[in-house]
Amino acid sequence: MNSKSNTPNQYALPHIRAMRGYIPGMQPAEPGWVKLNTNENPYPPSPKVVSALRTLLDGDGSALRLYPNPCSGSLRRVLAEHHRVQEPQVIVGNGCDDILNLLMRSFCDAEHLAGMMEPSYSLYSVLSTMQESPIRRVLFTRDMHLDIDEIVASGSHIFFLTNPNAPTGVHFEPEVIAQLAAAYQGILVIDETYAPFARTNCIGLLDEFPNLVITRSFSKAYSLAGMRVGYGLASAQIIEILDRVRDSYNVDAFAQVAAIAAIEDEDYYNYTITESNRLRQQYREVFEQYGWFVYPSEANFLFVEPLDAHNRMGAEIAEGLYNFLLAEKILVRYFPKHALTHTFLRISVGNAQEMDQLFEAIEKWRIKNNA
Amino acid sequence: MNSKSNTPNQYALPHIRAMRGYIPGMQPAEPGWVKLNTNENPYPPSPKVVSALRTLLDGDGSALRLYPNPCSGSLRRVLAEHHRVQEPQVIVGNGCDDILNLLMRSFCDAEHLAGMMEPSYSLYSVLSTMQESPIRRVLFTRDMHLDIDEIVASGSHIFFLTNPNAPTGVHFEPEVIAQLAAAYQGILVIDETYAPFARTNCIGLLDEFPNLVITRSFSKAYSLAGMRVGYGLASAQIIEILDRVRDSYNVDAFAQVAAIAAIEDEDYYNYTITESNRLRQQYREVFEQYGWFVYPSEANFLFVEPLDAHNRMGAEIAEGLYNFLLAEKILVRYFPKHALTHTFLRISVGNAQEMDQLFEAIEKWRIKNNA
Repeated sequence: MNSKSNTPNQYALPHIRAMRGYIPGMQPAEPGWVKLNTNENPYPPSPKVVSALRTLLDGDGSALRLYPNPCSGSLRRVLAEHHRVQEPQVIVGNGCDDILNLLMRSFCDAEHLAGMMEPSYSLYSVLSTMQESPIRRVLFTRDMHLDIDEIVASGSHIFFLTNPNAPTGVHFEPEVIAQLAAAYQGILVIDETYAPFARTNCIGLLDEFPNLVITRSFSKAYSLAGMRVGYGLASAQIIEILDRVRDSYNVDAFAQVAAIAAIEDEDYYNYTITESNRLRQQYREVFEQYGWFVYPSEANFLFVEPLDAHNRMGAEIAEGLYNFLLAEKILVRYFPKHALTHTFLRISVGNAQEMDQLFEAIEKWRIKNNA
Repeated sequence: MNSKSNTPNQYALPHIRAMRGYIPGMQPAEPGWVKLNTNENPYPPSPKVVSALRTLLDGDGSALRLYPNPCSGSLRRVLAEHHRVQEPQVIVGNGCDDILNLLMRSFCDAEHLAGMMEPSYSLYSVLSTMQESPIRRVLFTRDMHLDIDEIVASGSHIFFLTNPNAPTGVHFEPEVIAQLAAAYQGILVIDETYAPFARTNCIGLLDEFPNLVITRSFSKAYSLAGMRVGYGLASAQIIEILDRVRDSYNVDAFAQVAAIAAIEDEDYYNYTITESNRLRQQYREVFEQYGWFVYPSEANFLFVEPLDAHNRMGAEIAEGLYNFLLAEKILVRYFPKHALTHTFLRISVGNAQEMDQLFEAIEKWRIKNNA
């Protein structure tokens, strides 16, 4: 054995050696946690999903021994019909993150930069780093206004915009996105992971803007985070490019069946989305009764700026509450690294019982703080 | 709208615009096919897998609404114990191809070339192309001898060797791989997708060679092609690098549970592997009775060189039989692009009924050919 082989990571590419991976929200293995940190849906998936999966397991489970449909063909057809686009305008991924990764690999490298809003979904910059490419960041100000001119002038080749945005929940109307798509010289990705919870979305813009890509997820709106299914909608030309880079069997047989059943149960979908949005409004009012600032959210979470019992706010207050809740086994999300986020907590809209536990804990924290 | 946005694929990176994706074997959507083309296991998965998945669907399927364990933590533990390696030496992927992709992204670019044997698994070159990198090919000769010196001199930074090899089924002993690992200055990936069907494997070499990576799949030996689970074993340093590039939730909750149940049912695994290997020997003898050349296989397929009724062989004969079988709704694999493969067909070891249908069709073809 040679001395070199004792340090095998010396062979890793320099930019990979220098990078850090994306850190997802905590997913505790043991039960007993109130989980309001990764925007999972408090409702179970549609009963039709469960029943379709049970059918796949009928008999000896032989369905599992065969490779899945490599293109998720039936699911693409169902999605095309559902969104009234052509079938070649749809691609399915192992979660929405798979699609974001394909976009980055196809359109971004050291000479062709990606861009993103800051604050926004931090995965974009991790994916860009993997392409050995620094990401261009267009900075939000506290009013979360979208500065189209800044995006157009960002020097980026592909731009990622989460809409509704995360972690704020702030939504940009299709009219604004249309202006941006018309002005932007490059691929514009609207990450609509949270769009099912919003009043409007940008799918109607696809016909007009061949440089537009819309990404969607089954994790939130369809309660299928555990199944890993997401998809992209774009011009057929873009989809054809992404399909080259896509892994042949990226979506498993179960996930394909679950997603089709979920899409087809529109009543259940409408019920859960309506309920989630009703609860979002109700809980928002509770936070506002505390006097806390809350961004208007069209997603399934609220971005709230906590005040202690003396009406003080700030990073220490937010972090203090985060840690207090953690000790109570209540998980929310804290983003300490940015001036526009470090005084806030992002809290998923949970079910009534979870939210009751949250508000009880917050009351406890406020009383303790008052002492 | 500007004129540019009418041709959005102009924004794709030049090497992506120039490339073609990997083309997997046919996966017919409709029933009625004899499928001997993608080396699926003819046995269903372990009954314990089916039962574990059913349990996950108990009640309202709420398990699906939560994100899966991001690291497939329990599965890594079970795999580490099973293979007697440390837990930080294991990574789990969305199929073995996911791990191959992570390896390529971490260790190969235009300045750091990958290498592979030719003929071998063609995905390696597709993955290398995605990294904007030409792959170095070390050529087999008809005797399928592994030329260690050629690999060492290939100028590659990471080398991919399928063992047992595909499409031939030829196996290289750990002693040979140890010589290669000692001499090769770079990351040596032994793709052991088919190793469960072989007499020996290279896992015992991991301690000695920190530059060695072994990849494995649940698709073949565990009858879980539809579930998408594969894994990699290597030094903790290499695994830590791959984890940076890995998608946070690359393996879904079902796949993690299925894989654990599959590993734990050793009796069933031993039974199906033993049976598959017995049938491989039996079918090999049938082909040899035709007078066909068959490589000695330690995988779950046979690479056979067909002769027609006049004992003629060649690319036209092989392609003719491939097309004849296709018309009979029997799928096997034909690799027309290489002189060492274009006179052969690769035929998965199916169950008795499938193989009976295959041999009946071959008899028909020989009689027809004799006319």
